[in-house]
Amino acid sequence: MSDPQTLKGRKLGDRRVVVDRPHARYFRYLGPGVLEAKLEAQAPRTGYQRRMATVRGVLFGRPISTAAELAERLPIWKALPVFSSDVMSSVAYATGAMMLILAGAGQTNFKYVLGLSGVVVALLVIVTFSYRQTIRAYPNGGGSYIVAHANLGVLAGLIAAGSLLTDYVLTVSVSVSSGVQALYSALPAIQPFAVPLIALSIVLVMIVNLRGLSDSGTLFASPTYIFIGSMMLLIGVGIFQSLTGHLHEVANVEKLTGLATENMGIFLLCKAFADGCSAMTGTEAVANGVPAFKPVEWKNAQKTMIIMATLLGIMFLGTSYLAVNIGAHPAGAAGIGESVLSQVGRTVFGGRGPLYYILQFSTMGILILAANTSFADFPRLSSILARDGFFPRQFALRGERLAFNSGIVALSLASIALVVAFNGSTDRLIGLYAIGVFTSFTLSQSGMVRHWFAERGPGWRRSAFINGIGAVVTAIVVVVIGISKFDQGVWMIIIVVPILIAMMLFIKREYALEGVGLDVQPDIVFGPHHRSQRVVVAAQAMSRAVVQAVRVGQTMGEEVQLVHVTLDHVEGEQFRERVERQLPGVRVVLVESPYRALVRPFVRYLEVSQAEDPDRLTVVLLPEHLPRHWWERLLYNQNVHRIRAALVGRKDFVVLGTPYRRES
Amino acid sequence: MSDPQTLKGRKLGDRRVVVDRPHARYFRYLGPGVLEAKLEAQAPRTGYQRRMATVRGVLFGRPISTAAELAERLPIWKALPVFSSDVMSSVAYATGAMMLILAGAGQTNFKYVLGLSGVVVALLVIVTFSYRQTIRAYPNGGGSYIVAHANLGVLAGLIAAGSLLTDYVLTVSVSVSSGVQALYSALPAIQPFAVPLIALSIVLVMIVNLRGLSDSGTLFASPTYIFIGSMMLLIGVGIFQSLTGHLHEVANVEKLTGLATENMGIFLLCKAFADGCSAMTGTEAVANGVPAFKPVEWKNAQKTMIIMATLLGIMFLGTSYLAVNIGAHPAGAAGIGESVLSQVGRTVFGGRGPLYYILQFSTMGILILAANTSFADFPRLSSILARDGFFPRQFALRGERLAFNSGIVALSLASIALVVAFNGSTDRLIGLYAIGVFTSFTLSQSGMVRHWFAERGPGWRRSAFINGIGAVVTAIVVVVIGISKFDQGVWMIIIVVPILIAMMLFIKREYALEGVGLDVQPDIVFGPHHRSQRVVVAAQAMSRAVVQAVRVGQTMGEEVQLVHVTLDHVEGEQFRERVERQLPGVRVVLVESPYRALVRPFVRYLEVSQAEDPDRLTVVLLPEHLPRHWWERLLYNQNVHRIRAALVGRKDFVVLGTPYRRES
Repeated sequence: MSDPQTLKGRKLGDRRVVVDRPHARYFRYLGPGVLEAKLEAQAPRTGYQRRMATVRGVLFGRPISTAAELAERLPIWKALPVFSSDVMSSVAYATGAMMLILAGAGQTNFKYVLGLSGVVVALLVIVTFSYRQTIRAYPNGGGSYIVAHANLGVLAGLIAAGSLLTDYVLTVSVSVSSGVQALYSALPAIQPFAVPLIALSIVLVMIVNLRGLSDSGTLFASPTYIFIGSMMLLIGVGIFQSLTGHLHEVANVEKLTGLATENMGIFLLCKAFADGCSAMTGTEAVANGVPAFKPVEWKNAQKTMIIMATLLGIMFLGTSYLAVNIGAHPAGAAGIGESVLSQVGRTVFGGRGPLYYILQFSTMGILILAANTSFADFPRLSSILARDGFFPRQFALRGERLAFNSGIVALSLASIALVVAFNGSTDRLIGLYAIGVFTSFTLSQSGMVRHWFAERGPGWRRSAFINGIGAVVTAIVVVVIGISKFDQGVWMIIIVVPILIAMMLFIKREYALEGVGLDVQPDIVFGPHHRSQRVVVAAQAMSRAVVQAVRVGQTMGEEVQLVHVTLDHVEGEQFRERVERQLPGVRVVLVESPYRALVRPFVRYLEVSQAEDPDRLTVVLLPEHLPRHWWERLLYNQNVHRIRAALVGRKDFVVLGTPYRRES
Repeated sequence: MSDPQTLKGRKLGDRRVVVDRPHARYFRYLGPGVLEAKLEAQAPRTGYQRRMATVRGVLFGRPISTAAELAERLPIWKALPVFSSDVMSSVAYATGAMMLILAGAGQTNFKYVLGLSGVVVALLVIVTFSYRQTIRAYPNGGGSYIVAHANLGVLAGLIAAGSLLTDYVLTVSVSVSSGVQALYSALPAIQPFAVPLIALSIVLVMIVNLRGLSDSGTLFASPTYIFIGSMMLLIGVGIFQSLTGHLHEVANVEKLTGLATENMGIFLLCKAFADGCSAMTGTEAVANGVPAFKPVEWKNAQKTMIIMATLLGIMFLGTSYLAVNIGAHPAGAAGIGESVLSQVGRTVFGGRGPLYYILQFSTMGILILAANTSFADFPRLSSILARDGFFPRQFALRGERLAFNSGIVALSLASIALVVAFNGSTDRLIGLYAIGVFTSFTLSQSGMVRHWFAERGPGWRRSAFINGIGAVVTAIVVVVIGISKFDQGVWMIIIVVPILIAMMLFIKREYALEGVGLDVQPDIVFGPHHRSQRVVVAAQAMSRAVVQAVRVGQTMGEEVQLVHVTLDHVEGEQFRERVERQLPGVRVVLVESPYRALVRPFVRYLEVSQAEDPDRLTVVLLPEHLPRHWWERLLYNQNVHRIRAALVGRKDFVVLGTPYRRES
């Protein structure tokens, strides 16, 4: 990035040269040998590219320059919906999920819901304070991966990263599926198209996200704030009714039957608690996304974190309190029946009036938006992983709208694949979130403890204590969830996450090997090229591609040798005659191949003749017909690739591809 | 091909130079600038290649030189099994298939079988005499495609080719499936593995065929001759019994019930006849394969054709005669129940003795071998199509064992795909053969009529008359089959064949366009290269690949310019400093790209700077990290390909790929 003064200088220079330099339309002259590309320099050229650019413009908007990034940063009011819709959406189902588990030992146990909700909120407070510290300590983004990697080592970092990546994909699949499920409970006719509809919804969320952060913040703000508003109204009115003794019992509710098959005990409580914990997925979003905030980034992020936790706490406890007091009943396992929040809504708001419908629709909206938190998190985490070499490099590149396009697209594809694999019934994946989130919490908090011990700045003991509490509590939660949910699919996570980790380590190793192979020592000075070279052109027929290669070769050495492998003596001699006539001065070597191999005899000939004069270098020019379309690859022989693969990287040989394409 | 004298000369030359030339191990010196590669020149190099070569050697045998092709030619005794197993195998089911149709109007109509068989054999005689003439007229292979193409035009040729290619795939799928079906009627336990078993059998037939024609001829000879022998014995004994009044009625046969639902009429007769005609698929094999015979090729082919037709006629008529006279009953539609041939066998041979079992097993063998005729035909036809530009070129290349490997592999893959698509139940495809075969018969015979009229050699009227009869008769058969079998899937052929034809025309057009784009006028003489050129290297980072490209560039022009597109001003200046220090004399141009595009600003810069001095040529060197494994393609940016695609084929630009790979 250049400083503002240079920017001003550029503008002046630009004005002056407009008339007399062809560069001026596309480039700004910044100094000797430095140009800055204008947007015109990447304008589309062909009609096809122009049409594509128009489509991209409509879908994603105009390109944004890197320098404009600051304007894309999020103020708190935009950041809250972007980073918290996942967390807040859990209010819609967490209470009900806990009650359903407790119903297994009879409906008298619904009273435990309030206590369990209290424990979850306490957990939330601990985690929030822990993360508040992390945000301050890692102002460039302090997700679990960064903290664990920095303080506990590579493996801990990758475990956190793998768990979170898996979770993000799960979140998108499950929340979009539930949103669409809510839609076809109302319109059964569309049920056969559920899977395409879910996929389409994911694609829509993807497109909005490819438009960039700020755009998606604006778009998602209103449903989130409507949801928060109606929830606050619901809880306020409900508690007022409760205090004044006007809170009614819920009417016309379908009670679950035949469920009281288990004994109330610690295991059942743990299971219910594990379901309640799924409310906390997405808490890490803010800490990971600190650089997306307006300056001062860490301060704004801390504020957002506190607001988010406070709102979640109020809404979660309030819903549970009201649910118990109106005598609500959970919906069945497959989402059959009325949700607890809907029962609370119509009881408090006095029937299915406008307020009730606003609550219901904003709930549906926030369930779909929950996916959006993952769309903020996954690309950011994968870009960090790419920067560190654990993910393919393109994940670290920002697109035209400054979004991490590769990550957004990868997340969409992975979650669509999951939806297709489970044929749209992703309900049973809900239970799998929590283990990943709490694993990453534990690693992150433990890392922070190490961090404070290493740093020992002012007040480090207090900070280490807070994070230590967080680490211990979340570790206990991991064990509780792991045991109580093991049979419900947690074993899948135990398979998927290590595969992801292995993949990331493999990518890291590949890049490292590439580094060793390609790196140039920074202190070598390369003198001019002094070795003599002979130039060889591979030619299977007389064509413009061969003529081009010969003419290039003639600028590189005095004599060009043309090597032709032939299956037929007569054809070979005809070829030689033609070359010698049309390309005077080129020497033709015919290699007859009675066993019909083309590549290996050619390579062997080059080797053998190189061995005759080992001091010189052999430059091999490979004329190549560049396909215009993918199907052309099937029609033309791939011998060029095989020759290249056989010679590249070998001592004394330099291979040059000389692609040719007919003019269109 | 060189003449024997040169071959002798080579040997002497070879001996002399063994000690003093490094070429001698791999090449024979044939004259100035002409070498002949020995088998050693294509010997494997790496450990991996050596292991693969050993596997290939075990599966397919040692490579055979082109000159040794004559030794691979087939004598009649080997050609008969190779080219006739398809035709002969139909004896195993054709009679039964006709009886099953006739049973639709009651079992009293079985008497018509003998008459229908007579008509089919008459047809066979006509077609055989027609093809006898074709073989003489087209000694280099006179399949329907060649004859129709030469005499009736491209479209007629492609209709014949498309019908035949479809038929060959159908034949392989159906005959191998029936063979395996016969196996699991005996061993029901293997039924769940039917599809993999069928695929495996096809792969085995493929491997045998990749070993080359002569090998497969030897391998397939014994089952075919055992089948012919036991059939002849069966018919001889049966007719002797019949003449002496000792032929029994068949015992213990399960009669079909509830089938007499149709009225006997011309339509039912036509349907039965159409099924009988499927016996004639594969008749064209010999005419197509004339060049595979030992010299004098056409004479041997004619003899083989006559022998084949005679054997088929005897076996087919004999089976039908005996079937009617012992009162045999056809097996049900799904192949349930005992086959007619089996009933005839145990009645004539007096129960299930050794002779009966030899007959049954050789029948199973020949059913599987029927696939082999397609393996001789499909690759040969596709090689002819490839030579004419209607199929990808590699179909015209012979492999190490002189077989047309691409065709063999393509046929195997297509038929395995068909088996998988129909989940192994390919019975209902049987009815689809006949239409394709008779379409190609008609086109071929009509073509021959045109041929005789054009040539008017001695006896042309007689020849034209014979082929004319053939053309008219087979055309009638096409109509009969088309109408009576339309509802049984013939409509599929009407879809598939035009798609194949469109594909072949598309390929032809592609090659033609390529020819126009790449062809060099044969009378131009290209003088030396006089245009001045500037050399540009694209560089995204300092690496050995870039250093290599710069050093190559330095041999091509006095100054090398290094263009670096950067997203960050500081990074760009660091890069420039490093290049100027390590590669003295190289000029660095930085293009800053605030919108983060890399490819288009680079291309635009080259264009703009080329426009400043349009007389010179711009040579662009693209350093490229050549992937060692497929997954590396996912890890490295594909910008090089995009730059190449944007610049290749444009005026004033030459693009050179400079691949680099770390040493292993």
